[in-house]
Amino acid sequence: MQSSYRPIADIARELREGNTSSVAVMENVQANYEKYESALNAYKTWNGKTAAQQAQAADLLLKSGMDLGPLMGLPISVKDLFGVPGMPVFAGSDTALPEPYTAAGPVVKGVQRQVGVITGKTHTVEFAFGGLGVNTHWGTPVNPWSTDGHRVPGGSSSGAGVSLLQGTALLALGTDTAGSVRVPASFTGQAGLKTTYGRWSGRGVIPLSSSLDTPGLLARSVEDLAYGFAALEAGMSHGQVRALPQIDLSSVRIGIPEDFFWADIDASIATVIDAALSRIGSNARLTKKMVLMGCDEAFKVFSVGGLAAPELRQYMQEHYPEKIERLDPVVRIRIEGADQVSSVEYLRRKAVLQRSGQEGLAAFDDFDVLVTPTIVVPPPLMTDLEAVEEYGRINMLVLRNTVIANLLGWCAVSLPVGLDARGLPVGMQLMAPPHQEERLLAISLAFERCLGAGPQLLGHAPGIA
Amino acid sequence: MQSSYRPIADIARELREGNTSSVAVMENVQANYEKYESALNAYKTWNGKTAAQQAQAADLLLKSGMDLGPLMGLPISVKDLFGVPGMPVFAGSDTALPEPYTAAGPVVKGVQRQVGVITGKTHTVEFAFGGLGVNTHWGTPVNPWSTDGHRVPGGSSSGAGVSLLQGTALLALGTDTAGSVRVPASFTGQAGLKTTYGRWSGRGVIPLSSSLDTPGLLARSVEDLAYGFAALEAGMSHGQVRALPQIDLSSVRIGIPEDFFWADIDASIATVIDAALSRIGSNARLTKKMVLMGCDEAFKVFSVGGLAAPELRQYMQEHYPEKIERLDPVVRIRIEGADQVSSVEYLRRKAVLQRSGQEGLAAFDDFDVLVTPTIVVPPPLMTDLEAVEEYGRINMLVLRNTVIANLLGWCAVSLPVGLDARGLPVGMQLMAPPHQEERLLAISLAFERCLGAGPQLLGHAPGIA
Repeated sequence: MQSSYRPIADIARELREGNTSSVAVMENVQANYEKYESALNAYKTWNGKTAAQQAQAADLLLKSGMDLGPLMGLPISVKDLFGVPGMPVFAGSDTALPEPYTAAGPVVKGVQRQVGVITGKTHTVEFAFGGLGVNTHWGTPVNPWSTDGHRVPGGSSSGAGVSLLQGTALLALGTDTAGSVRVPASFTGQAGLKTTYGRWSGRGVIPLSSSLDTPGLLARSVEDLAYGFAALEAGMSHGQVRALPQIDLSSVRIGIPEDFFWADIDASIATVIDAALSRIGSNARLTKKMVLMGCDEAFKVFSVGGLAAPELRQYMQEHYPEKIERLDPVVRIRIEGADQVSSVEYLRRKAVLQRSGQEGLAAFDDFDVLVTPTIVVPPPLMTDLEAVEEYGRINMLVLRNTVIANLLGWCAVSLPVGLDARGLPVGMQLMAPPHQEERLLAISLAFERCLGAGPQLLGHAPGIA
Repeated sequence: MQSSYRPIADIARELREGNTSSVAVMENVQANYEKYESALNAYKTWNGKTAAQQAQAADLLLKSGMDLGPLMGLPISVKDLFGVPGMPVFAGSDTALPEPYTAAGPVVKGVQRQVGVITGKTHTVEFAFGGLGVNTHWGTPVNPWSTDGHRVPGGSSSGAGVSLLQGTALLALGTDTAGSVRVPASFTGQAGLKTTYGRWSGRGVIPLSSSLDTPGLLARSVEDLAYGFAALEAGMSHGQVRALPQIDLSSVRIGIPEDFFWADIDASIATVIDAALSRIGSNARLTKKMVLMGCDEAFKVFSVGGLAAPELRQYMQEHYPEKIERLDPVVRIRIEGADQVSSVEYLRRKAVLQRSGQEGLAAFDDFDVLVTPTIVVPPPLMTDLEAVEEYGRINMLVLRNTVIANLLGWCAVSLPVGLDARGLPVGMQLMAPPHQEERLLAISLAFERCLGAGPQLLGHAPGIA
């Protein structure tokens, strides 16, 4: 599947023209699962049998002239943090959560209402609390680009990018609290969208940090991402699919925040980003270095622990206190840190973030989009993470650039822009103001058209080809 | 003014018919201020001169055929927690807050847009953190019903009810976080409305507890309260005044929550409430004792400290940390309690309140309104409060019945229903689901029509007559 990339829009059209069928697509998906899953470990729960039935239903409906929406008959993987009726939800923990948590929220309903075919539940870091993708209970999915050992896939949506690469999904639902969609997208060479907080409901999703959690989407290209975004929005609102605005790169003003986004960058990643920026810059209206107000202050809040530890701790104490002591050690240590956070300190952090988010918006008086490397280091090897302090240091560095959009309350995209000297994918991040997903995706699409789409640009993933 | 009670609607009509003028009304207001203020101490800042000019402007506009809305030319007092340009805001503290806090928010703008005449800023408990009305910095307003010493006026909107009674305002803006509108209404024999959280914006109001603060209104009768509510909603939304629904008492199902609402009730207050309930009950469709789900659990959260201490502490630390050590001792003690509240505990409390509010809503399957005594004890004498523990105990008891509507997220009214054996006013509380202010006011009006309006029912306030 990977070897013959075609945009989702083409596949959807062929489904409607009768040139392919959802059943045929799902046969490929099943074959890819059988071929690659044991090596890559993308899924906690595979839904093959039910998915095949739903594919058949989608074909019958389409043949009968009943078009329920743009996701109809397409394979979609779902991070195992979302409730999907009929499948258990583990949220990366050691045991399945009780029945009520399998109920679908608005995002999953938006898929199902269109008879999108859910292929299974992809792995996640336990309660999504980590950016590398590590999971001690169920194993860490393998980054398909690994050639010299087991490299992490990025997290917390650790199976999402892998599912796209191994050809078992055309779209992957994830969640992003500090970078959990954009990090796995970047580490696996996919495109990822972090939506604005509140734009897509978090109901039916196990929370990590109720103040910052956002559902999001991964796809093989920005083109597919935009397709999936528009389709999901239509599904959630019972509305029509709205076309993206047309944005030409020559009208786009690009801000390059200096701040800390470039510190500690790997030399060969810098080379790839610089080359991409230079190519884009020569076509854009304006590319200029700038300083992002509020950024340092917001990051300081994150680096002392942010909001997630108290919020997750309280949620777990209320809903499944018995799970706390069984948590993956790297998660448990940080949850226990919540005890040191006073309510006043917690509220101070919230106030700082709100103020910083407002201050930062001034940047968009002069720029349409702010661009940074998504991550300044390559996906680490599992062996790099054995010491807890090392895990902590790398986790913080990996999330550093992405978390800013969460802290400031914005939306953001990561798109693949090339391979580094090791042959590992490099991602570029675009940030935009709250609720400007359409403009952000349109600008990202202009970037992609300038550079080439992900799979075409990067070639085959070595783990799959 | 008090001796000749006429509904606001009549006064507003006379203003438009030319049978009276705003200037004449304001002359009475000024005379009443000069006569009673030194004994009662309702105001922190008096706005007489500006108010007289605005009254003149209102008359000219009305004469010119320009009707800017139902509050036009009417005297309205504003709790000194709201910003009003041109007057300092102390929020009950020892020094005026900096300039930005005097900006008007939506509620005050709703008044000013209609050329309502703001008579001044009424006293408040420091940062509204207390239910009795005590203020060490500026003196505690005197409850005009006091005959045997200085009885408290109720708080935290401590000057609001007093301003109505002394004839310096026809409507009084207050805020209610645990009962701060209904308690002074009940203690001074006025009608008070606590709006649903979020219905009226808290912008431009110094916060006590950002999760629970609600702007509200006091008036001499439910009829006036309904007039003021509809007028303010129209002013805030730039919209038309909407008429209340017509509700006949014979269609109303009344639930009487047993729980703790009747514990420790003063015998002569019980007699007044029972008599009023029996009269109303004989005209209502149904009056029935019931148990209010979620109530005990929510109150437990309040009795261990609720949300206000951390929220106010954080706010003060951020905005004027230097004021903390200068706080009124009864306020400072509770603010310092915030240090013992962990972020996890704070979030647990929020979660309990949210759940309790949902659970409690089931009551409205069977009842239109829930009725309790507003307060089960008379307004204490200042001398009763000298010991800090006694202050704490009485404050908690006074807020016990009102805080439930805040904790559960509902709206509520207090209306006067008679005088106790000491000749002190007794209030009855009606609670309704979120955003049902119109129905709640219509039912309260049916109660008032059955029992008689406040000033007519209670006679003159002894402190004023």
